[in-house]
Amino acid sequence: MSTPVYEKVALLGLGLIAGSIAWACRRDDVAGEIRGYARSAESRDKTRKLGFCDVVCDSAVEAVQDADLVVLAVPVGAMGPLAREIAPHLKPGCTVTDVGSVKRTVIEEVAPHIPEGVHFVPAHPMAGTEHSGPDAGFASLYDNRWCLIVPTPGTPEADVARLEAFWHRLGANTERMEADHHDLVCAVVSHIPHLIAYTMVGVADDLSKVSEKEVIKFSAAGFRDFTRIAASDPTMWRDVFLTNKEATIEMLGRFTEELFALQRAIRTGDGEQLHAYFTRTRAIRRGILQAGQDTDKPDFGRAKVDP
Amino acid sequence: MSTPVYEKVALLGLGLIAGSIAWACRRDDVAGEIRGYARSAESRDKTRKLGFCDVVCDSAVEAVQDADLVVLAVPVGAMGPLAREIAPHLKPGCTVTDVGSVKRTVIEEVAPHIPEGVHFVPAHPMAGTEHSGPDAGFASLYDNRWCLIVPTPGTPEADVARLEAFWHRLGANTERMEADHHDLVCAVVSHIPHLIAYTMVGVADDLSKVSEKEVIKFSAAGFRDFTRIAASDPTMWRDVFLTNKEATIEMLGRFTEELFALQRAIRTGDGEQLHAYFTRTRAIRRGILQAGQDTDKPDFGRAKVDP
Repeated sequence: MSTPVYEKVALLGLGLIAGSIAWACRRDDVAGEIRGYARSAESRDKTRKLGFCDVVCDSAVEAVQDADLVVLAVPVGAMGPLAREIAPHLKPGCTVTDVGSVKRTVIEEVAPHIPEGVHFVPAHPMAGTEHSGPDAGFASLYDNRWCLIVPTPGTPEADVARLEAFWHRLGANTERMEADHHDLVCAVVSHIPHLIAYTMVGVADDLSKVSEKEVIKFSAAGFRDFTRIAASDPTMWRDVFLTNKEATIEMLGRFTEELFALQRAIRTGDGEQLHAYFTRTRAIRRGILQAGQDTDKPDFGRAKVDP
Repeated sequence: MSTPVYEKVALLGLGLIAGSIAWACRRDDVAGEIRGYARSAESRDKTRKLGFCDVVCDSAVEAVQDADLVVLAVPVGAMGPLAREIAPHLKPGCTVTDVGSVKRTVIEEVAPHIPEGVHFVPAHPMAGTEHSGPDAGFASLYDNRWCLIVPTPGTPEADVARLEAFWHRLGANTERMEADHHDLVCAVVSHIPHLIAYTMVGVADDLSKVSEKEVIKFSAAGFRDFTRIAASDPTMWRDVFLTNKEATIEMLGRFTEELFALQRAIRTGDGEQLHAYFTRTRAIRRGILQAGQDTDKPDFGRAKVDP
C-alpha cells in the first residue's frame, strides 16, 4: 500500500476535475481521507451515491476542517469568494491549491485571503473532457497529461514539491510556470481553440440558408469535432474569458490577422501560399503524436478500421 | 453472394477515398472488377501490394476501358484535365462520377468533356480521416455517413438511382442536392472548419512568445483537436478553397462577424452574453449524437474511462 501524500484532502466543487482527482487518489491511496463540498445539493447527492468522497459535507467550512490540502475546483469567478469564506477555518500549515484555467486573476483574488502560515500553491491540470458534473470524473483523466504549477513568491519549496508529488501520483507530469506566461500559453492551447469552436458552432446554428438538420447530418465532414469542444461547461468558460481577457484578445488579434491573410489568398487565388500553409501545419501534429499527447488512429479512433 | 451494382469499376486516383470505396466494394461484392490508376508510380505500387484493386493500370485511359462506372477521385483541380483525357475512351452508356468536395466547379470543368451517351452523376461522400494515400482507406469509412448526389439536368433517373444504390451498398446514406446549395452546406460543415483549424495551428506554430514545445506538451487542453483536421491533405484542401471561393468567403464573413461579437463581449465583460452563447451551442452537439454522427464517449473515446 502506498503512503498518502496528504492525510486529509478537501475538494471544493465536485465536477469533472474534482471527481477525477478523487478517483485518481483512490486508485493509488494518494489521500488518507477525501472530504467534498459543492454548492449544489444535487451535486452533493450525486457524489454521495457515486462514492468518490469519504465524506460529503453540507458546507465548505465543514469540508476544510483539519484538511492538509484544500483544492478549489470551482469556476474561476467563484474562487475569490470561496477563499474568503474558508480562510478563517483553514488549519495552520495546510496547503491551498486550485485548478483554475487562468492564473493571474486567481492569484489576485485568492492570495489576499490566505492567512499567515497557510500556503497557496496555484495549479492547473491541463486535462478535461466535454462532460461536466460529479459523474463525469474518472481515475485516468490526468495520466500522462501536464499539470502546470504556478508558485507565488515566498512559498516554501517543500510545499510546492509536495503538491507536485501529489499530481505525479495522480498520473500527471508537472511543470512550473510564471502566471502571465501560463495565461498566454493557455490562451493559445486552450482558450482560443474553445472560443473558435463556440463561434463555429454558433454560426452554423444561426444560418438561414443551411438548415440545422443538414448541419447535423453532414457534420462528420469536420464540423462535429468543433461541437465536442463547444459542449464544454458554459459557466467555466464564461469565467475563463472574463478573467483572461488580455491574453485572449491578444491571441484573437493574431488569429484574425492570420485568417484574413488566408482569406486574401483564397480571394486572389494564391494556391502556392495555401499549399505551403497547409503543409507547414502538419508538423505540429507529428510532434503531438510523438509526445504521446494524442492518438494516431484515424478520426481519433472513431473510425472502425478493419484489422 | 450479392449481385454487383456495376460489373466493372474504374477508380482514378488511389487515395483514402478510392481505397475505401474499393475495400467497401470487396466487403459486399458491390463491383465485379475494380481497376485503378494513380498518376504517382509510388501510389500504384503501394496499391498493387495492398491488393484492393484487381488490376492497377499504368494509364487512366487503360483503366477506363470497358468500365461501367468511372470514379474521379483526384483533387478538385485535377478533375477537368482528367475528364478530358479519358473522354474519348469511355464506354457508351457508362456512368462517370466524382467524389469532389466542391460541386459547381467540378460540374463546370468535367461536364463539357463527357461524350453523348455517357452520364455524369456528381457525388460527394461526406467522410474522411486526416490520413491520406492508398494505405489510408478502409471498408467501413462510409458506414452511416452521407453521400450527397448532385445530378445534372438531363441525366436519366435510372443512372442516378443506380449510383445511389452503389453508395448504399458501400454503407452510406444518400441525399440529392443542388450544386450551389451543396457548396454552401459544405462550406459550413467542412470547408470553414478546416480553414479555421489550419489557421489556429498556423498561429500557434508562428508565435514567438510561446514555444512550439509548450504548444505540443499542453495540446490536450483543446488545441490537439485542431491539429488532426489541419493534418489533412494540403493539395486536396488548396483545391477546395480555390474552387469554392464564393461560399467560403461568404461563410468566413459570417464567422468573423460572430467572432468579433464575442470578442467585444469579452472586452466589455458581458458575462451574460457569453454564457448564453456557450449554452446555446450545446444543443447541436446533442443533435449530432442523436443522429449517430459522433460518439458520446468523453474526448471522442480517447479518454480511458474506467468501467
